[in-house]
Amino acid sequence: MSDDAPAESHVWAVIPAGGAGTRLWPLSRAAAPKFLRDLTGTGRSLLQQTVDRVTPIVGERTLVVTGRAHRDAVAAQLPELPSACVVAEPSPRDSMAAIGLAAAMIERDDPDAVLGSFAADHVIRDEDRFRACVREAVRVAEAGYLVTIGIEPTYPSTGFGYIEAGGPAEVDGAPTARVALTFVEKPDLARATGYLASGRFRWNAGMFVVRAGRLLDLLARWHPDLASGLREVAAAPERLEEVWPTLTRISIDHAVAEPAAERGRVAVVPGAFDWDDVGDFAALAGLIREGRSRPEGAITVLGDPAEVVGVDASGFVAAGGDRVVALVGVDDVVVVDTPDAVLVVRRDRAQDVKRVVESLREGGRSDLL
Amino acid sequence: MSDDAPAESHVWAVIPAGGAGTRLWPLSRAAAPKFLRDLTGTGRSLLQQTVDRVTPIVGERTLVVTGRAHRDAVAAQLPELPSACVVAEPSPRDSMAAIGLAAAMIERDDPDAVLGSFAADHVIRDEDRFRACVREAVRVAEAGYLVTIGIEPTYPSTGFGYIEAGGPAEVDGAPTARVALTFVEKPDLARATGYLASGRFRWNAGMFVVRAGRLLDLLARWHPDLASGLREVAAAPERLEEVWPTLTRISIDHAVAEPAAERGRVAVVPGAFDWDDVGDFAALAGLIREGRSRPEGAITVLGDPAEVVGVDASGFVAAGGDRVVALVGVDDVVVVDTPDAVLVVRRDRAQDVKRVVESLREGGRSDLL
Repeated sequence: MSDDAPAESHVWAVIPAGGAGTRLWPLSRAAAPKFLRDLTGTGRSLLQQTVDRVTPIVGERTLVVTGRAHRDAVAAQLPELPSACVVAEPSPRDSMAAIGLAAAMIERDDPDAVLGSFAADHVIRDEDRFRACVREAVRVAEAGYLVTIGIEPTYPSTGFGYIEAGGPAEVDGAPTARVALTFVEKPDLARATGYLASGRFRWNAGMFVVRAGRLLDLLARWHPDLASGLREVAAAPERLEEVWPTLTRISIDHAVAEPAAERGRVAVVPGAFDWDDVGDFAALAGLIREGRSRPEGAITVLGDPAEVVGVDASGFVAAGGDRVVALVGVDDVVVVDTPDAVLVVRRDRAQDVKRVVESLREGGRSDLL
Repeated sequence: MSDDAPAESHVWAVIPAGGAGTRLWPLSRAAAPKFLRDLTGTGRSLLQQTVDRVTPIVGERTLVVTGRAHRDAVAAQLPELPSACVVAEPSPRDSMAAIGLAAAMIERDDPDAVLGSFAADHVIRDEDRFRACVREAVRVAEAGYLVTIGIEPTYPSTGFGYIEAGGPAEVDGAPTARVALTFVEKPDLARATGYLASGRFRWNAGMFVVRAGRLLDLLARWHPDLASGLREVAAAPERLEEVWPTLTRISIDHAVAEPAAERGRVAVVPGAFDWDDVGDFAALAGLIREGRSRPEGAITVLGDPAEVVGVDASGFVAAGGDRVVALVGVDDVVVVDTPDAVLVVRRDRAQDVKRVVESLREGGRSDLL
């Protein structure tokens, strides 16, 4: 599959844009979460980069599903998107309801459509390989599978779920696709090491490609009320407010992917591209350092390097743009400077940044969340 | 000597207010150096605290000698001081010229006057003991000595000079005064440890008490041109601009105290009060922690503690007042937040903050110095 291939007129992108990203505070805030931020210094937010990445495949056929609070911000960042393509959930009801609602809307308008679901806050730089992989997944979805893209693990991560791949899916035009055997939750290090060594396991990046109708039909087997509720809202959008609160809160993995895998209905297309869910500042620092074309000093800077002064110091600085950040004698620290908050965290404690957010919430500082 | 004693009408305070304090950047700046800042959170700058501390002894007889650039700021901070009591040096010419000019002005108006010279940027909390010590030093100065106040060392500091005390000075009303044998420069740790163990050595805090005329007469022995130049300016202030650039640059220790000590003309009055020259942020952090009446968390805060969030973190935060500072998993760090610069330094590297200032100067960032 070449990336020069044309857009596929029956393929839609569904982009769930949610999640607080509290481990990326103070860059990520409730009012401006991770997906709305330009975390990689490209001039485009993670959401915009996600749309840019799939546009060569889907053209203008993109639905973004987000919280009501972020509808306007999403629409403002994506002026090319018709307003009907920004779907606002009345309240968070987990990934199955969000993706399922988009699927029902797509199915209603185009019963043969295939959708690919891609989170709004992940980073993928090797876009050609990504799109080649998605195009192959579309072929497999057309053959009736629920397809997941399984990222080739590069280390024994305990932070991601895994997918175990079985034999070839044997679909024309999809030479690398395999049948998915099982989805496994985040493992401990011993298991993760075993997974990596086996060569059979892939990271579950939450990327699914499937016919819209097929997804809802599968859902109807195990959660018939949820499937019928979503189709009902798609047929009568004015009923959204009434139906939405009655829908089951469940992830797409638990609702559909896991039971379908047990029945041989899931395929995995291996993804050999770089991928990162930017889970914390350590991940962000790594991403930005790797993304630089030239070697740089011991301090990796997001923002203007002229605003950072280091003396015997190493780490990562997210410069706020209107202040100098000076580091002396500190190693492997992350400093994030924003107009109303500055964070200093040891890189290997980056996961604990969420505890600052908890502390601020308990202290009634909602202005900073 | 009781601190309830009245002001002494022939005693003057001379307060040299200079020094860039680059190791306290970004709190201390060229335009607002250390002595003009409220570094201890009392609501009074170090200069104001210095004046407050001596006022019970000298009443309104205080001369502040400062750089021309800071004359207006000094006057604004000390509205009670007659404008003639803020003396502006045309350019920095070291401590002998600064203190000597004040001495010449005092001698001109009151030939019997005693002056006490106290740096504008030191911190002393035990003010009663300080004043008792100064009053004793005045008695010794009246007997003709150049008197230095020698601080009782509490650890083998390698950051201060020392004074070696000999036998009793035998001055009425000054039971603790001793003859000073030698002034020694900052020692290495082995020597400092020996000094501490001997019980004979005191820290040289640069506090001198002496008759104004006596100081100039001593100076005239070793630096006659400097002494006559200073007396000339005092007699004809309009000649300041012309004479000042011709004056020898030399410290009062080298110009007078050391040669006078060799000849038995210097006495030392032991000071058993707390004293700190706030040389860097480690010193400032210690000062503020010790000054707190109640125990506090692992992070010592200068400013509003509500603006600081710590998660498994320890150290010192100078909060800027308009921003939250959050620390996660970092120990013994100093974070200083100001509107245009934020500093993160490991406490044991606090001396190297001056290297940030050098780097900014080389980078042409005079706006931040």
